[in-house]
Amino acid sequence: GAAPAIVQAQANIRWRLASSFPKALDTIYGAADVFSKQVAAMSGGKFQISVHAGGELMPPFGVVDGVQNGTVEMAHTAPYYFFGKDETFALGCAIPFGLNSRQMTAWYYEGNGEKLMREFYAKYNIVNFPGGNTGAQMGGWYRKPIGSMADMKGLKMRIGGFAGKVLERLGGVPQNIPGGEIYQALEKGTIDAAEWVGPYDDQKLGFNKVAPHYAYPGWWEGGPQLDFFINQKAYDGLSAEYKAIVTAAAAYAHVDMQAKYDGRNPAALRSLVSSGTKLFRFPKDVMEAAFKESMAVYSEISAKNPNWKKVYDDYSKFRAEQNLWFRFAEAGFDDFMQQQKL
Amino acid sequence: GAAPAIVQAQANIRWRLASSFPKALDTIYGAADVFSKQVAAMSGGKFQISVHAGGELMPPFGVVDGVQNGTVEMAHTAPYYFFGKDETFALGCAIPFGLNSRQMTAWYYEGNGEKLMREFYAKYNIVNFPGGNTGAQMGGWYRKPIGSMADMKGLKMRIGGFAGKVLERLGGVPQNIPGGEIYQALEKGTIDAAEWVGPYDDQKLGFNKVAPHYAYPGWWEGGPQLDFFINQKAYDGLSAEYKAIVTAAAAYAHVDMQAKYDGRNPAALRSLVSSGTKLFRFPKDVMEAAFKESMAVYSEISAKNPNWKKVYDDYSKFRAEQNLWFRFAEAGFDDFMQQQKL
Repeated sequence: GAAPAIVQAQANIRWRLASSFPKALDTIYGAADVFSKQVAAMSGGKFQISVHAGGELMPPFGVVDGVQNGTVEMAHTAPYYFFGKDETFALGCAIPFGLNSRQMTAWYYEGNGEKLMREFYAKYNIVNFPGGNTGAQMGGWYRKPIGSMADMKGLKMRIGGFAGKVLERLGGVPQNIPGGEIYQALEKGTIDAAEWVGPYDDQKLGFNKVAPHYAYPGWWEGGPQLDFFINQKAYDGLSAEYKAIVTAAAAYAHVDMQAKYDGRNPAALRSLVSSGTKLFRFPKDVMEAAFKESMAVYSEISAKNPNWKKVYDDYSKFRAEQNLWFRFAEAGFDDFMQQQKL
Repeated sequence: GAAPAIVQAQANIRWRLASSFPKALDTIYGAADVFSKQVAAMSGGKFQISVHAGGELMPPFGVVDGVQNGTVEMAHTAPYYFFGKDETFALGCAIPFGLNSRQMTAWYYEGNGEKLMREFYAKYNIVNFPGGNTGAQMGGWYRKPIGSMADMKGLKMRIGGFAGKVLERLGGVPQNIPGGEIYQALEKGTIDAAEWVGPYDDQKLGFNKVAPHYAYPGWWEGGPQLDFFINQKAYDGLSAEYKAIVTAAAAYAHVDMQAKYDGRNPAALRSLVSSGTKLFRFPKDVMEAAFKESMAVYSEISAKNPNWKKVYDDYSKFRAEQNLWFRFAEAGFDDFMQQQKL
């Protein structure tokens, strides 16, 4: 029952959140909105966080600097964008042949992920919270399908940062092209291929009209995690109640974003295929060469970067254990279900 | 920055939560604790929910009655326990060959799951929130391994409610035995097999010493969801802030419980195998017969129970779409990873 309350009033707080994403990516960008609305609702409107699309307050890739120097109190981003500052950022998001979505969440919530990544992010005055996952992505759009490793030679492909390192070692030529210019580059043949996200996001950009071959799986993004980055001083200034509210709102946005992708991808894939998209699975030799080169890249980084080594040693051990377990109950169940007429 | 606050104080609230689980199941029972602590933290200790193990306030299977008639404000349970009241309860938890963990969450958060199940639970004065998932379970412990359908004939197996219907149609003899008495029944040979959860929980009960053959996958529990059940009147009496706090705390507990199972199962499986447990995969003919009989059961229930039919029509369509999509990026990625030496 209710009893008369003697409470200390919570302060009014106004924060700004800089997203790395455009509003058009409604599921990714939207996770910051979901977070902000939940914080406002839980605090009776007293804790307000305004959400700003990439470029509005600062460049999409300027958000780590923005949070670090306190220009904004927080950001929502894909940490691997910042692997140029330190490769360790990628481990908090996705690396080729890394953890899948559930495994990534397990590493953060139950393994050493949160502890290790927070220790690393502290160097940038950042406290982080998992803030969504896309699930395993597709492997991109190709003007011609990839039949074997021979087709990787000279392949000019628009591909996100870290995976480009591996593509290069397979003989490909990674290209850095903003989302808005990919379609034209594919159409003109300036590039041979481009990866973006998965059916739901890719469909909006219409790549299937100019590069109809759609590969799977996106081995460089088996479960990319988005993060909320909060300025340490801003976070430390919150009451215990508001810290707990931020934690739970992030969890809510985290689970909601994966659900949105899972819920919306099937219809998008169906629609893409019915309008002529041709699916193909990456050939075994490409997958195996990519795996081998990825592991070589990780060894090289481990030898040079102690931040990376400390986190990757734990991450890779966790990955081995997870895949050992998932092959039995999870894969056994999913395999069977995927073969049934439902 | 902070500004002087003019706020309306939130009321002090004390609720009781009846769990269906014993404290020994620390991950399942623990989700209610995680929820309660998060609610207390977010409300500055003003919203307190005491958590009571199964049997403490009411029998473990009495919690729906308890919430319905307001004896307690809320419960944490596996809804399929109540399929005897109405089979529709099982759709909010797990049915044989149903949705996996991520798909179940997607159905609730993004599909029609929440809407349809809340419409159903309203008949019991219940408002529900997803409150954890175990992930795909194992297929139980057997004194002798199952080689084909012939071995299912007369198999006396301890198995949870709904799946027993299917086992019966495969020639087996389902047994209802409380968790604490399974070990002895297996040891004596009163039963031939027993299913419980997965490596982490099963290990504590020591079944491997008396029934060393451990089957996968648990086709009757591909992603069982636990739920928080809240009495409608108690929920309606909450402020908008407290409703939002309950929502986010449930999401936090939901993601945390799956992470705990994923994080802890691998070491438990490794330890079981190193102490003599023998893993076997359910034979294809058993899986196929079980699938066929399950679908027949669902058709029969649909013909008799309009509550079930309304929800199952949506659920089964969602399941078809999910499995269509998961076979490409997700399974393509996981398959490959599970075959690598990591």
